[in-house]
Amino acid sequence: MTQLPRLPFDPLDDKLKEECGIFGVIGVTDAANFVALGMHALQHRGQEAGGIVTYDPATGFNSARRFGYVRDNFTKADVMDTLPGSIGIGHVRYSTAGSKGATAIRDVQPFFGEFSMGGCAIAHNGNLTNAHQLRRELIERGSIFQSSSDSECIIHLMARSIQKNLAERIKDALRRVEGAFSVVAMTRTKLIGVRDPLGVRPLVLGRLGESAYALSSETCGLDIIGAEFVREIEPGEMVVIEDGKVHSTRPFAPAPSRFCIFEHVYFSRPDSILEGRSVYETRRQIGVELAKEAPVEADLVCPVPDSGTPAAIGYSQQSGIPYAMGIIRNQYMGRTFIEPTEQIRNMGVRLKLNVNRALIKGKRVILVDDSVVRGTTSIKIREMILEAGAAEVHFRIASPPTAWPCFYGVDTPERAKLLAAQMTEDEMRAFIGVDSLKFISLDGLYRAAGVAAGRDPKAPKYCDACFSGDYPVAPADMIEKGFAMKAAE
Amino acid sequence: MTQLPRLPFDPLDDKLKEECGIFGVIGVTDAANFVALGMHALQHRGQEAGGIVTYDPATGFNSARRFGYVRDNFTKADVMDTLPGSIGIGHVRYSTAGSKGATAIRDVQPFFGEFSMGGCAIAHNGNLTNAHQLRRELIERGSIFQSSSDSECIIHLMARSIQKNLAERIKDALRRVEGAFSVVAMTRTKLIGVRDPLGVRPLVLGRLGESAYALSSETCGLDIIGAEFVREIEPGEMVVIEDGKVHSTRPFAPAPSRFCIFEHVYFSRPDSILEGRSVYETRRQIGVELAKEAPVEADLVCPVPDSGTPAAIGYSQQSGIPYAMGIIRNQYMGRTFIEPTEQIRNMGVRLKLNVNRALIKGKRVILVDDSVVRGTTSIKIREMILEAGAAEVHFRIASPPTAWPCFYGVDTPERAKLLAAQMTEDEMRAFIGVDSLKFISLDGLYRAAGVAAGRDPKAPKYCDACFSGDYPVAPADMIEKGFAMKAAE
Amino acid sequence: MTQLPRLPFDPLDDKLKEECGIFGVIGVTDAANFVALGMHALQHRGQEAGGIVTYDPATGFNSARRFGYVRDNFTKADVMDTLPGSIGIGHVRYSTAGSKGATAIRDVQPFFGEFSMGGCAIAHNGNLTNAHQLRRELIERGSIFQSSSDSECIIHLMARSIQKNLAERIKDALRRVEGAFSVVAMTRTKLIGVRDPLGVRPLVLGRLGESAYALSSETCGLDIIGAEFVREIEPGEMVVIEDGKVHSTRPFAPAPSRFCIFEHVYFSRPDSILEGRSVYETRRQIGVELAKEAPVEADLVCPVPDSGTPAAIGYSQQSGIPYAMGIIRNQYMGRTFIEPTEQIRNMGVRLKLNVNRALIKGKRVILVDDSVVRGTTSIKIREMILEAGAAEVHFRIASPPTAWPCFYGVDTPERAKLLAAQMTEDEMRAFIGVDSLKFISLDGLYRAAGVAAGRDPKAPKYCDACFSGDYPVAPADMIEKGFAMKAAE
Amino acid sequence: MTQLPRLPFDPLDDKLKEECGIFGVIGVTDAANFVALGMHALQHRGQEAGGIVTYDPATGFNSARRFGYVRDNFTKADVMDTLPGSIGIGHVRYSTAGSKGATAIRDVQPFFGEFSMGGCAIAHNGNLTNAHQLRRELIERGSIFQSSSDSECIIHLMARSIQKNLAERIKDALRRVEGAFSVVAMTRTKLIGVRDPLGVRPLVLGRLGESAYALSSETCGLDIIGAEFVREIEPGEMVVIEDGKVHSTRPFAPAPSRFCIFEHVYFSRPDSILEGRSVYETRRQIGVELAKEAPVEADLVCPVPDSGTPAAIGYSQQSGIPYAMGIIRNQYMGRTFIEPTEQIRNMGVRLKLNVNRALIKGKRVILVDDSVVRGTTSIKIREMILEAGAAEVHFRIASPPTAWPCFYGVDTPERAKLLAAQMTEDEMRAFIGVDSLKFISLDGLYRAAGVAAGRDPKAPKYCDACFSGDYPVAPADMIEKGFAMKAAE
Repeated sequence: MTQLPRLPFDPLDDKLKEECGIFGVIGVTDAANFVALGMHALQHRGQEAGGIVTYDPATGFNSARRFGYVRDNFTKADVMDTLPGSIGIGHVRYSTAGSKGATAIRDVQPFFGEFSMGGCAIAHNGNLTNAHQLRRELIERGSIFQSSSDSECIIHLMARSIQKNLAERIKDALRRVEGAFSVVAMTRTKLIGVRDPLGVRPLVLGRLGESAYALSSETCGLDIIGAEFVREIEPGEMVVIEDGKVHSTRPFAPAPSRFCIFEHVYFSRPDSILEGRSVYETRRQIGVELAKEAPVEADLVCPVPDSGTPAAIGYSQQSGIPYAMGIIRNQYMGRTFIEPTEQIRNMGVRLKLNVNRALIKGKRVILVDDSVVRGTTSIKIREMILEAGAAEVHFRIASPPTAWPCFYGVDTPERAKLLAAQMTEDEMRAFIGVDSLKFISLDGLYRAAGVAAGRDPKAPKYCDACFSGDYPVAPADMIEKGFAMKAAE
Repeated sequence: MTQLPRLPFDPLDDKLKEECGIFGVIGVTDAANFVALGMHALQHRGQEAGGIVTYDPATGFNSARRFGYVRDNFTKADVMDTLPGSIGIGHVRYSTAGSKGATAIRDVQPFFGEFSMGGCAIAHNGNLTNAHQLRRELIERGSIFQSSSDSECIIHLMARSIQKNLAERIKDALRRVEGAFSVVAMTRTKLIGVRDPLGVRPLVLGRLGESAYALSSETCGLDIIGAEFVREIEPGEMVVIEDGKVHSTRPFAPAPSRFCIFEHVYFSRPDSILEGRSVYETRRQIGVELAKEAPVEADLVCPVPDSGTPAAIGYSQQSGIPYAMGIIRNQYMGRTFIEPTEQIRNMGVRLKLNVNRALIKGKRVILVDDSVVRGTTSIKIREMILEAGAAEVHFRIASPPTAWPCFYGVDTPERAKLLAAQMTEDEMRAFIGVDSLKFISLDGLYRAAGVAAGRDPKAPKYCDACFSGDYPVAPADMIEKGFAMKAAE
Repeated sequence: MTQLPRLPFDPLDDKLKEECGIFGVIGVTDAANFVALGMHALQHRGQEAGGIVTYDPATGFNSARRFGYVRDNFTKADVMDTLPGSIGIGHVRYSTAGSKGATAIRDVQPFFGEFSMGGCAIAHNGNLTNAHQLRRELIERGSIFQSSSDSECIIHLMARSIQKNLAERIKDALRRVEGAFSVVAMTRTKLIGVRDPLGVRPLVLGRLGESAYALSSETCGLDIIGAEFVREIEPGEMVVIEDGKVHSTRPFAPAPSRFCIFEHVYFSRPDSILEGRSVYETRRQIGVELAKEAPVEADLVCPVPDSGTPAAIGYSQQSGIPYAMGIIRNQYMGRTFIEPTEQIRNMGVRLKLNVNRALIKGKRVILVDDSVVRGTTSIKIREMILEAGAAEVHFRIASPPTAWPCFYGVDTPERAKLLAAQMTEDEMRAFIGVDSLKFISLDGLYRAAGVAAGRDPKAPKYCDACFSGDYPVAPADMIEKGFAMKAAE
Repeated sequence: MTQLPRLPFDPLDDKLKEECGIFGVIGVTDAANFVALGMHALQHRGQEAGGIVTYDPATGFNSARRFGYVRDNFTKADVMDTLPGSIGIGHVRYSTAGSKGATAIRDVQPFFGEFSMGGCAIAHNGNLTNAHQLRRELIERGSIFQSSSDSECIIHLMARSIQKNLAERIKDALRRVEGAFSVVAMTRTKLIGVRDPLGVRPLVLGRLGESAYALSSETCGLDIIGAEFVREIEPGEMVVIEDGKVHSTRPFAPAPSRFCIFEHVYFSRPDSILEGRSVYETRRQIGVELAKEAPVEADLVCPVPDSGTPAAIGYSQQSGIPYAMGIIRNQYMGRTFIEPTEQIRNMGVRLKLNVNRALIKGKRVILVDDSVVRGTTSIKIREMILEAGAAEVHFRIASPPTAWPCFYGVDTPERAKLLAAQMTEDEMRAFIGVDSLKFISLDGLYRAAGVAAGRDPKAPKYCDACFSGDYPVAPADMIEKGFAMKAAE
């Protein structure tokens, strides 16, 4: 008799994963409610766990950390009533692949330290490329780490600073770290935001009424609380918000910015605004560019839900080929817990997706997806579409081939598992088994992102290391572990 | 200082709700896994709770009932290991509005009864219009009800039958009830499926391999387990599946069928096939009809996510006005628990939706939604769109005005709360505050559903009582409570 | 390396187990609080689960059933706030050995039925000896059972009654059942108590203030709520309490009473009063009788904690041999969940008990225990005492040999597993491996319980079937299953 | 209508509370099982929470901390399976009164630190009298505390040590702390035990088979795992157990020992052996001394359960007045959660205790209790006894008046709340309202504990500061906060 696997696992997890979203607010009643809303809006940046810290003069610093969704944890009185105060910060987290099973609640941010001049909580989005080296040094000097998270280095570096002021101690600490970091921190009276000199990860400032302010990874976190978008925190900038005023300083040596281009492609929400551009519109424009670069005769343009949708719309509009929902996503799939074997993986795509058979049958179908990482999901989707009777299947990918791992806060497989690191485009087409497979060019992606001239190889506007192997900060810890950088060309 | 409500509540619940989905399987190893998958695919038909019953010769009948999603309950070994056997049925449930708070786990189906010739479990989709009268009579004769659910009448009627065979007892019982019912039932060796004479609710048959069979409310439940769609159970038909064979009988007096047209509009999944037609395609065609019936000059056609999407695509294709995702849905919103006050309700739409400001600003926007029930959500969406700077807002609704309550298994407000029962179309437009508001006509809807001639008022193909007030079965219990039928015209 | 079993299991469960305690109250604010207190006082009568039903005019009948201790369940606002009203009943339950694993929450009392004249809840202590036969008949006539509990027959018999009044329907139902029953029931306005004609199980009446009343299995349930003990409900009596008045009737044919003598020996709490006698004092008197019947030279009299304590005190006082706590019980042992293998069982006595080595070493020790059922625990205790260096071990048992199973509401092993059904006293001594083993005589037990003349074989005052095989009610269901009564002598 | 409080709170908490029990084992399979058993045996020393750390070469150091009883937490596979390894330590905790509500799971020991030479876990019983000063200094130097527990200082002092070896670092750290400490620690290969120079808190060594060893606060922890009692760790001694060998060193300057005499009176279990003496026997002897020092004519000697029992037996044996269980304890009371108002407190004694009315009525009763702290419980018990009809009530207390707070690891009220700090013995008698009240003398207590000559005021054998105000270590932190030591006499 037929046997089926049990629900649930995620048959569609062949994605790069943003590791964190951060949020902070000051000057409001019940800051924790605002922080929870902001975290809910940023949930796509980290779905495994979340934490909130608030400060209230009567009860001091309070914190709560939970595994699971914001909506399931930070909505209940028994949690929220323990988080009083008018200032607070929060963090949503996606753990790296390796430590998934071992992740303990103690690894969930924000981290907190009690110093002689008072407490400080800190939430970090990004990845420190010299954290292992710093951690080793700190332990040798007597620091005791609470977590396995590298972000904890920041709080220990603060504890070692001789500065008398917590904001100055944060500067001291961040001057020691390398890599990508957007940070939201709080003391008893201040809300603090910092971006690293390259500005790899986003961070925006918003205002509520006269004197309340919010910091958020993306503008969608401001929208949900009804805050007005003021501006992005600039690369290398630190803002300290206190008593309704925003003080800006530049703690780091100046450097040309290198914002992560994958935020445009996939990580950020389509309703967020990055660098003054609608994310949705950039993605739609990627579809337009793709249709120009890689046209094909077909009957339907279908997105791989949900992330391929804007590019598919753009492709349809540019090509004139009708847009259709050829694949339907089960909206109740939610998070996934069980790690199935590769074999069950192969069966399981239909837990999350179902083909619209009546629509697809006999048609030449263009499928638009945002990226191909290991290629496993693409194979499943091709099988589904053919099994439903499609005449032809053409894949169009809204990003260039992902050939290099990210060390700045994105969970990527090691290089050996990246399909594009092992194969040419045509080999990939054959491996996935489709009639055609085309990726947007890096220049085309830059154009869709508003750089009309395409990528300047001497001074690229973005960090695009995952596509180009051009790492703006040398990943010291990884090099120590044997990672080979791309040879200079 | 500003104050915000806590997550979560559903700011977008101005929908009619299907009350149930049913599923059954026979002839497979670990039937419970199949049933859970089928229920997962049918989750949109009932999200509050679910239950599974299986039969295994060693342990007898086993059952598990849980509040919450299938993926959160029927995926864990501690539950699934208690459900052995090669035959099983399942039920997902949405409780009626009135009893929401009071719903107890004892109201969760399938219901089970032990009879002298063995046990029988039963799962019911629909609503019995004479259940109150039957219940009163059964209690007077000594039956003790376990639940507040009217569906339990069926099992007590079976207990009173003098038939020696459980399948015959089911017939006896169902001949006594009135209203809408699709039923899946099981004994130790049989899987049974029945549709009421009018065939108001759907039920389909699928086959796995040589001798395993499944019954499902919709074809998407067959797709997920890899079953082949055989055919719909016909109105008034009963199938008894045993030993790999399907026996069909007709227990009821013949009657012209009246399938629920709202299944096409909203309830069923877009990837399901109803009456041989793709649900997605019917909805897209509704958009085409709407664009013909109610054109308007505008810059963008945007769906109200997610249910308005196919009709919006159709409207765009027919009108040539570009399709765009002007409103983004937070995919982590999930279920909603807290019943907020009307005031908080007004604030809260942004928990679930966010406008794509950069896209909408200065544009004339057509919003396509599937239905308007009380109108509360429509007002919130109009506010969002205008606040984001839209120049004009035009609503196009993919169903006729909902002016009458449903008594056949759909949760509708009482008639006094249905906007269309109180206002003309133009009054509704003014109430919602948009530049224009148009509903598809009933004839247009019939055309989109494949009835080229439109609705035949003498013999309508569908049950469309919610639009027309033309009830194919008199709702006896409700009439006893004072409900006034529409006067004959 | 040494390996140890995991906590917890109960190494000392060689006891007969009372199956239930019942409690009810009327005329108080927040009746559920009183019921919970009463159930807490009666927890020794049933530790597996408990349930409460209350009635409140605003919300109707409400119930809550939980596995586990009263103190862990019926103390929390989320449960207690769902149980409003000034009338309520409760039940604590110990499941029978056989169904331990399979016990479902649906088997937890009180049971409830909705009748045409209103609802009725019922809690039952005892066992119905013709329940299987009744159940079969009821199912054949169309009743659907909710539980596997035989007590549910009562509610179905009520549903079949043609009486117009619920109290009369209870009488009708109880006239059909055989065996032992003390019952507490409630309607919207009445609290009802009944004892079977033989009065096998206890039930007492108490008063709070002017017009509030309580019913409890034992007087300790009255003490905890500060109620005054009024009197025992008499064998064959039914009391209906309404509007502050107690109405007494005699629904059954008169019969000589046969109260369970094991309530005196072990089941009831030592601070309860049964038949006007202190349970503690009766047990101490058993020790006095034992010392007279079975003297022995020794250095110490030690109780097997906790139930052997009063008899050990009496034995010490009569014999002049010093009383000492030679065995200390771990008060944190609590309930036990895991069913260990017989081998682990043998290791595990020290989880619950520890010998006071310094005290025992080199001493001749008399151990006083309340009963010996299978003998397994006695062997473990003998081993512990000898391993600690005792010179001699003498067992004195505060009850006669338990040679027959109980069918009136006590969980006993089948006859083949009762040590005393298989061996003579001397064989038991050898089996357990002690220097001497003596049981009190049945006459001695009667004397300790206040019957100076000992047991009258023609008309024994008590039900002592477990010792004598003299069953006051023939166990119809068991005889049908093949149980052989004792041959007439 | 009468109203009653909800269960549960502890009506009998007028006790000094030992704050911790510690346990460790090395050289066994599944060390966590042994540790859990040891902690279960030591549960009386700390009931609020517990933690276990183990080390396994494959998975490294693992830990689990839980609120609640050992039996409820450290018995489940989902916890125990995460604790592999052949070496482990555990801790049971009772939080101090002040922080009860605020205790977080992060305060639950063992504490763990990762050092450059490997990890170390540590469990501490006692109290450090200079912890606040040390903590302040450590934070100033850059340490980040994880908990609010003063015991965490030890791990930070270790991190600051320049020793290359963890055992040496422990010595460094413990040489800096003052006060009372028995410590169990572990590295990847060593189990370590230390007692402070005065030996205030107990710690014993046991052996299992050839090469496995255990450390436990009391011998009852050895008994439960079947370990042989080897000897006490001596005051000022450190033992390092590795590869089946025990190495002993003396890290501290020698000092005369001052073991806590209250361990004999109340804290330790009656089946433990302290200083070569049976705790039970010492307590019985206290009763004998009390009967000599404070005789009275009466009918019954009753213990206040359970801690007064051995002394009551001794009093009865010395006086010839019969011993009786006049007060029965509800064995299901368990832990208590809700902090009631003083008024409810007054009502509530009957939740835990019930008087054996039939026994007490008309009698002159001697009640033997172990101590009187604030006197609140004594008043409730007197009320119960008199309300049950006792003719006279005489209190005999098995310890001298508790007039001074303990700073060495016992939770005591501040001095102003200690009844004996405010009143003479006769004033206390009047306050409690009994016919007579007598405490054992300090000399009598020493005699019962085996010091025939009584207390030597120049060089007392024990720490008896709670009775005498003679503190062997000046409590530096408390003096800084304003505590006034007893003036020299």
